[in-house]
Parts: sequence; C-alpha cells; structure tokens
Amino acid sequence: MLDNLEKFINLKRDIAEINIDPLQRGGVLTPEARATLMEWGDGYSVCDFCTGMLDHIKNPPIEEFVHGVLPEFLGTDEVRITHGAREGKFAAMHSLCEKGDWVVMDGNAHYTTVLAAERAGLRIEYVPSSGEPDYAITQEGYTKAIERAYEHKGNVSLAVLTYPDGNYGNLADARAVADACHDYGVPLLLNGAYAIGRMPVNARELGADIIVGSGHKSMAASGPVGVLGATEEYARTIFRLSSTKKNKEVELLGCTVRGAPLLTMMASFPAVVERVAHWQEEVEKARWFSAEMEKMGLMQQGDRPHNHDLMFFLSENLYQISQTAKKGRYFLYRDLKDRGVCGIKPGLTRQFKLSTFGLSRPELDKVLSAFLEIIESYDRA
Amino acid sequence: MLDNLEKFINLKRDIAEINIDPLQRGGVLTPEARATLMEWGDGYSVCDFCTGMLDHIKNPPIEEFVHGVLPEFLGTDEVRITHGAREGKFAAMHSLCEKGDWVVMDGNAHYTTVLAAERAGLRIEYVPSSGEPDYAITQEGYTKAIERAYEHKGNVSLAVLTYPDGNYGNLADARAVADACHDYGVPLLLNGAYAIGRMPVNARELGADIIVGSGHKSMAASGPVGVLGATEEYARTIFRLSSTKKNKEVELLGCTVRGAPLLTMMASFPAVVERVAHWQEEVEKARWFSAEMEKMGLMQQGDRPHNHDLMFFLSENLYQISQTAKKGRYFLYRDLKDRGVCGIKPGLTRQFKLSTFGLSRPELDKVLSAFLEIIESYDRA
Repeated sequence: MLDNLEKFINLKRDIAEINIDPLQRGGVLTPEARATLMEWGDGYSVCDFCTGMLDHIKNPPIEEFVHGVLPEFLGTDEVRITHGAREGKFAAMHSLCEKGDWVVMDGNAHYTTVLAAERAGLRIEYVPSSGEPDYAITQEGYTKAIERAYEHKGNVSLAVLTYPDGNYGNLADARAVADACHDYGVPLLLNGAYAIGRMPVNARELGADIIVGSGHKSMAASGPVGVLGATEEYARTIFRLSSTKKNKEVELLGCTVRGAPLLTMMASFPAVVERVAHWQEEVEKARWFSAEMEKMGLMQQGDRPHNHDLMFFLSENLYQISQTAKKGRYFLYRDLKDRGVCGIKPGLTRQFKLSTFGLSRPELDKVLSAFLEIIESYDRA
Repeated sequence: MLDNLEKFINLKRDIAEINIDPLQRGGVLTPEARATLMEWGDGYSVCDFCTGMLDHIKNPPIEEFVHGVLPEFLGTDEVRITHGAREGKFAAMHSLCEKGDWVVMDGNAHYTTVLAAERAGLRIEYVPSSGEPDYAITQEGYTKAIERAYEHKGNVSLAVLTYPDGNYGNLADARAVADACHDYGVPLLLNGAYAIGRMPVNARELGADIIVGSGHKSMAASGPVGVLGATEEYARTIFRLSSTKKNKEVELLGCTVRGAPLLTMMASFPAVVERVAHWQEEVEKARWFSAEMEKMGLMQQGDRPHNHDLMFFLSENLYQISQTAKKGRYFLYRDLKDRGVCGIKPGLTRQFKLSTFGLSRPELDKVLSAFLEIIESYDRA
C-alpha cells in the first residue's frame, strides 16, 4: 500500500472551461491570491512572527485585517478567522447554547447548520418554507417556530437564518427575522456563506448578532477559511479567553487558520470589496440568464425576480430526454462538458442549481447555447 | 478603512535562508506540493466530484489516501482528515468524554491539548515531568495521575501523551504509558504532531487508541490540515453518522479540509514516506548538532542522548551577552538573521528551542558557525 504512491502527485483538476457550480463560483482565486499561495504555501508560514495570537500577528498584517478591516466590512464589533462557515456556526452554538437547548432555523438551512446543532447537542425547531415554487421564509415563521420551541419547555438560545440559502438563492427579509427573534430575546446568527464576498452585507443593519462567512465559497480564497463576526455582547462569550493559557481563545483552540488560506483571503480582499460594489450587475445578469433559461422550458424556483446568482431550476424537458437518451441520466453532464460547461452534478436532469457569479455575458451566452443545442439535438432525434 | 487595501497583496515572507523554528521545519512544501497548490488552489476545488463525503471522493483520489494509505501509515483502523492536531484532539475529547470528566495528560503537553480539554468542559489531571534537566514523563506518572483523578470521584475518560512534546522533543515510552492507561480502561490519545511525517509511528505498536498528526507541522503540507486516527472501537463514536443527514459525520461537521491543503498533504506523501525511512539519520544529525552547541557552552535539556530533531537549549552565556549588548535581548535574533539564520523567537536568549530537521550538514555547519561567531564577537568586545 505504501509502495505505489505516485498517483498522489501531479494530479490535475478535471473541469471544463466554464464551471457553473455555485460552490465554485465565488472561490476562484484572484491572481494576487495565487501569487500569495506560492509565497506563503509552506506549513505554518503565517506564524513566523506570532507572539501568541493569530489575530494579532502584525507581519503579515493579520491584525489590521481581522481587527480593523473585517469588522467594518461585515458591520460587526468583533471578527475572527475560522476554518469556514460551518466551523463558525458550531463555535457560536457550542459557546452560546447549553446541551438540550433549542435552536430555531429556516427549513432551507444548509446541512452543516443541522450538523453543527447536532454536534453541540441542540434540538432543532424548523421554520418551514412556503414550499414550491417560492420556498419563502418569513418573519412570521420565526415567531411561530420560537413559540413552538418554548412550548417544548426548552430554552431557545439561538436562531439561524441562511442568507441566502444554498438551494434556491433566496434572500429572506433578515431585518424582519431579526426583529422577531429579538422580541423573544433570541440572538440571530446569519449564515452568509453565499453572501459575504459576493454582495453587500452589514450585520448591524440586518440586525444579526452573529454572522458567518466562507472564504472558499465567496471570498476568492483557498479553502478552508471563513469569518465569524459577533456583537460585543456575544463576542465576549464566543471569544472568551482560556482560564489557564494566557491570551488563548478557548473556542478557537488558540488559533484557527494557521496557514496560507488566510493570506489568500487577504490578497483577494481588495478585489472582493470591488466586486461587492458591483453586486447589482450580478443580480441583473442572473435575472437575464434565468429568463433565457425559462424561454427553453426550464422553470426557476425561489425568489422572483431573483436577487442572487445562485438559482434553482426545474427542468422537466431535460428529464424527459434522460428517459430515452443513450447516456441516460448522465446525458446532461456529458453533453454540457462536451460544450465546455461543468458544475451540474453528474446524473441530475430534473432539477439542479447553478450560479452565474463572476461569469461574463459571453460566457453565459455559451452556457445558454449549450443548453439550447442539447435540447434541440434530442428534439430532432 | 476599506479604501487602502493594497497592503494586503504582494506580501512577502520576511525570513532568512535557514529557518530553525521547529514549527517550520516539517512543513516546508515539496516541489510536488507547490505544483498542487497552483492546480488546486481555488476555493473548494477538491469538491468537484464529491458525492457527499470528503473522505470518499474518488477524483482526486482522496478515498484511497484516507481509507487505504493513511491507516496503514499510522497503524490504525480508521483515519479522517482534520484541520490539524488540535482539532483532532478536540474531536476525540468532545465525542468520547462527557463534560466534567477527567482527562490525564503529560505536563509537557502542548497548550492546545489544554484548550481542547477546556473547550470540551473537561478537568485536567497532569502527569508532572521530572523537571530540569530531563523533563521526563513516565509510566508510573500516568498510573499515579489516573489514581489521583479517580480520587476526585470523577470519570477518567481519556489520557493524552505528547509524543514528542513540543518543548524538549522528548519521546516517552508510549507503549508503557498505554499499558498503564489500559490497566484502568482509559484510552490513550497520542499527540504525534511532531512525529507523524518525520519519524516512524505506528499507533497499534505503541498501544495508542487514538492518534493525531499535523500536516503543516510535520507532513510537508500547507496549513491547516491534519490527521485523526482511531481504533475501530473509538472510531465508531468519534466518526458517528448524523441522525438526520445521510452519510454526514457529525463530529467533522460533514467535511473538514475542503480545499488545497489536503491535496498538498497527498502530493508530499511519497516524499514523507521516504524521509520517515531515513529518520535515524535525522536523529544522528541532531545529536551531533547538540554536541557542537554544548562545546560552545550551551546545555541541551530533555532526553540524552536525544532522539528527535526538536531540541531545547539553556544558554546562560548568550543571556549574559544580552545584558550589555547594544541591541539588548534582541541581539541574538538580529545577529543570527545577519548570518542567514532565523527561527529563534525575537527576544529569547537564555533558553530556546530549535530543530535540525531536513537541514543538511553544511546548512547546520552554517548555523553552528553563526552561533560561534556571535559568541566570539561579544567575547572580544
């Protein structure tokens, strides 16, 4: 087993020219981040001049990034670097909630929110979505879910809103949800894994007490790396210091991202700030793309008009094709790849999600043409 | 604050030619790992062909690495990828121990072992070392510590041995410690952050039930990434599946290192296996280096003869120099840097640790010459 290891070197990434997987669109590195990977790739490179706390390292200027720039960018009091959004959610739940407490979350929540709650020993009360075709999450839903949770006689110690969710790209009215939660004294954690680094998000304006983001998902960073922000009130608990180890934050096990991913997030950050300022163009591009897809018989689910680059489509026509296509349900994946497009999971035909983020109109034209050609080729056959 | 962000790009690492920081020696990337960073740097790159579980991804061949190669390499039943040794320790403690339980650990334990226990709500009973100059940890120490912990009327659910510790580079008799723990039915977690990837380590032969290693510390990988291995008995609990989310391991929040660091670990792995086979040469080099340092009046602490590249020195002569040197206690850092050597923390003179790992004899000659020149230059003055 340890004799034949050459297979692990020189591995190439087998992807098409245009990748429309929502997971991949916001994490494409900038040239600056790529250069950073070369300079800071070694092991613990960022720790050369550490005096005990990752977030206070001055060379490279992590301290200024974490304590100056990121709190302003996120609109929150305190920020720390995490391994990603899921680890930030767990850190918040593990520190703010007691085992057996209830956490309220939207029915569109990412599976990692559920896992973080399960790992922290919490019980979950869901806010159901309105279902097909909008899958909307409302303020009233949170009010009812919190009341249901209280009826179980448990303590409700946290609410989570996925903003946007990772299936439909829906942006609920976060401010209204926050108000509902605060009426019951429940803090709101905003999962902005698909928002922070793509679109303007200000935790303070949205009423979020805690906020998490993902570097690899939406901040043009190499994974795994994320951000965890909190108001002073909750930061005190989440980022509490060890009782015995000086200057070490318990919930972060001292330091989190002791390596290059953090530096890639920093190197991409100027470009990320710039792209966030152009968010409205991304929204318009997504709406145009959605309209073009619908002209081909697909149906976009979720918010309409849509407010995010992540979109979910029903595609009964493609499913019908899969019933007789030679390649079966893999026809769509293979036919798209033949046309330089990837990112829809192999085997999916009846429904799928995709993202238009950071793709130019000519690139999206190529994607649309690919779908049209594929549909027409089977129509003819 | 968001206007002046150019400072975060084009950052250069300000280190000397030869870095003797123990933290940095084992994490220097191989050329293969550097190439991998370029190919797989983007965000979530490793997830292109994921069907739900990171450790079962076939393209790139993560499944074979995690389920085939690593268990054999570590001598354990099950292995998963973590963000590093500390996250592996927390995962084990959080899943195997109940809040309020006792964990027994060596007095030389890394601070992150203490933090992991504190985060998991555990109480700590230390196995004190023998103190200056050996700082030895014994089997008898574990027996006594476990008995003391039981006297507190608590449950003793885990023991941890740091192998070697990060201060003195001492390698305790792990097999004997394991036997002592097992006599009381207490599982032993071996913290091999400075061992795995440098020297041969086989959990089964050492009697370790759980083992953690660090990619960025000792496996020529870009941080953060690590390994967590366990016997079947404990793997069942640590890697338990979610009760609601199919195929998702709760303690890992589904997946851990969803990015390039894992691929760098894989790309460096053939070279790591090769260097582990030459471990005895590293030990001999360390012993020779230690003897040369002692000829200059420094005193190596810990195991003698030494069995690891990480060494701790008392240097009263350098401390005396610092009392009158123009640059005060920073003289050593600056004078070494002038001679192409870095890795001893700025300000330290009276005692410090260093590592000879992966440095050639000519490079180590340069380090020794630097120390000699510095000592002689102040002797003359």
